[in-house]
Amino acid sequence: MNYETPRFYRVMRYARETDRDVIDMVGGNPDWEPPAALRDGLREYADFEPARFQYPPSAGLDDLRGEIAARRGVDPEQVVVTNGAGEANYLAMAAALERDAGSEVVLTEPVYPYYPGKTTLLGGRQRFVETDPDGHLDPRAVREVVSEETACLVVNTPNNPTGAVYPHETMAELVSIAEEHDALVLSDEVYDHFDLSGRFASALEVDSANRIVTNAFSKSMAITGFRVGYAIFPHELAASARTRHMLVNVTGSRPAQYAVLRALRETGPDYYRANRERLRERVETFTAALETAGADYTRPDGGFYVMARFEGYPGTLENVERLIDEAGVAGMPGESFGESRREWLRFALVTPRVEAAAARLAAYFE
Amino acid sequence: MNYETPRFYRVMRYARETDRDVIDMVGGNPDWEPPAALRDGLREYADFEPARFQYPPSAGLDDLRGEIAARRGVDPEQVVVTNGAGEANYLAMAAALERDAGSEVVLTEPVYPYYPGKTTLLGGRQRFVETDPDGHLDPRAVREVVSEETACLVVNTPNNPTGAVYPHETMAELVSIAEEHDALVLSDEVYDHFDLSGRFASALEVDSANRIVTNAFSKSMAITGFRVGYAIFPHELAASARTRHMLVNVTGSRPAQYAVLRALRETGPDYYRANRERLRERVETFTAALETAGADYTRPDGGFYVMARFEGYPGTLENVERLIDEAGVAGMPGESFGESRREWLRFALVTPRVEAAAARLAAYFE
Repeated sequence: MNYETPRFYRVMRYARETDRDVIDMVGGNPDWEPPAALRDGLREYADFEPARFQYPPSAGLDDLRGEIAARRGVDPEQVVVTNGAGEANYLAMAAALERDAGSEVVLTEPVYPYYPGKTTLLGGRQRFVETDPDGHLDPRAVREVVSEETACLVVNTPNNPTGAVYPHETMAELVSIAEEHDALVLSDEVYDHFDLSGRFASALEVDSANRIVTNAFSKSMAITGFRVGYAIFPHELAASARTRHMLVNVTGSRPAQYAVLRALRETGPDYYRANRERLRERVETFTAALETAGADYTRPDGGFYVMARFEGYPGTLENVERLIDEAGVAGMPGESFGESRREWLRFALVTPRVEAAAARLAAYFE
Repeated sequence: MNYETPRFYRVMRYARETDRDVIDMVGGNPDWEPPAALRDGLREYADFEPARFQYPPSAGLDDLRGEIAARRGVDPEQVVVTNGAGEANYLAMAAALERDAGSEVVLTEPVYPYYPGKTTLLGGRQRFVETDPDGHLDPRAVREVVSEETACLVVNTPNNPTGAVYPHETMAELVSIAEEHDALVLSDEVYDHFDLSGRFASALEVDSANRIVTNAFSKSMAITGFRVGYAIFPHELAASARTRHMLVNVTGSRPAQYAVLRALRETGPDYYRANRERLRERVETFTAALETAGADYTRPDGGFYVMARFEGYPGTLENVERLIDEAGVAGMPGESFGESRREWLRFALVTPRVEAAAARLAAYFE
């Protein structure tokens, strides 16, 4: 098979297996506490009767589906609870490609590398649209590449890796472009709780039968390993997505779904706000140190990532491994996200040691 | 989409929504206790540090993969820990079809209905081989349908729905037929702990690069809702299967994997034996009552299911729903498993009320 294998695991393994102390800024694994109610949910689950250890409904525990639907203002029939955002995006792209309304998947450049891999896996063709240097997406540029061949346009807001947050007008315009070409917008909003700009707009704000929204509790509840996410489909695509979900996975893991349900119900806004403010402080700390070091960098509107560029040190896998060995900081190669960021490195701010990391980088590149 | 939607969830929902008391013998959900260590594993997990709430390795927790590999006598690199046997079978069939060595999937008739659905989803064509009236598979019949067009032969032992257990000679012969035609055998052994005959033979006993074995802890640990299974691939197919697993699901649910790991390590043979013996008693009770009622029935070599046939009452979905309403017993329509069992009903012996169920059936049909 020729579909791309995302390199996250490879870099993480390299960082783990190195002798020296390494500050891990590779993947988007939160380093903070999950909600207390999530831990309570697991404890409570451990004492349930055997019947509650068996298959939940294929599309997810009814109460969880209902809770998600109520919060997002959609019909529960539109919701499929998935094995994380990973499966949600897979189902969404499959739904778009199965409509027989084009076989191209339009992706932004730079791109989160799972999207092109999923496109190939599903038999679609990738087409890229360049974002602005700051990561924002100009709907006029999208209009130039979308055609009758387009099955869907995939956007991620807040964006990984650029940190861009697309405002309401952009989202509305993207949905409108999709409608004009009988295509879908797939909006992956997994970082929605980490909007630092106040401008985040979900595609759900734009009422349309041409958009699918995916999300997960992986980042918002600091549980990337639990694999609880969801996709919200237009009514006419929901049944087929449920069938694919059933044939691939049967259903998701019930203890994880139950713990998320309790956490959703019992966790107040303070939990989410504290995590967002911690991230905001880390962005300040890290970018200030990069500024002092004279590096180019992005200041994210949201999400977990800062991209940085160091003179004469392109963002190759080789250079990332060298940086692990010689500076003790692990990031991701910019080239993993596309040609336009090949000079850059991506750093995930999911460690309390962002200041130390920036100091190591400054010392190494000075 | 045209792939078949398995009807289990539909019948279970119908049974649940009926007013009267219904004995649920629809799906393969064990009604007995999971291992005590599994509950302990969840409790322990609830107190772990945040880092252990994040992504496990994509192919599964290293310790779990290692434990499975050691028990099955294979290299850990061959093991992918999956979201239940459902995903394991999906990955295995995809691996077979991706080899470009045929696009037909040979299935037994009667068939577990997820297999034809997965075949269609993956772009393969189904071809059926009839089993004997008692559910056994004659390798000569297999030889007649396997050809250069065959990508894989899917077998399930102990079998759902027939209860047949294929002996070592059959398994060896099937692998040998696959080797002769550059095809694979996919052996789904999820009921292996429920062999009542003593003749169960895993395909792993036959050393070959032409077989994939799938399994799960869903039945053996009474946790169908946890979604922890695995597939064992030949070395040359393992990397591609891991890539597909990563692109579809990223990884499986970590609390479930951890609880299974603890249960694997700490659960002795008594637990498995007690569950098997309980099942054996239920088979005796249920078949004795069917005998008294004058019904035709199968006596399973293993697995959870007994098939029964009542004069003038074919195994249609309509009749299954009527039986729920009028007799208070819920089974699965035989027609869901293929033409050859359209006169039959399948009953899952996963309720302590098998005697009452048989009495209700006898009274209804007398």
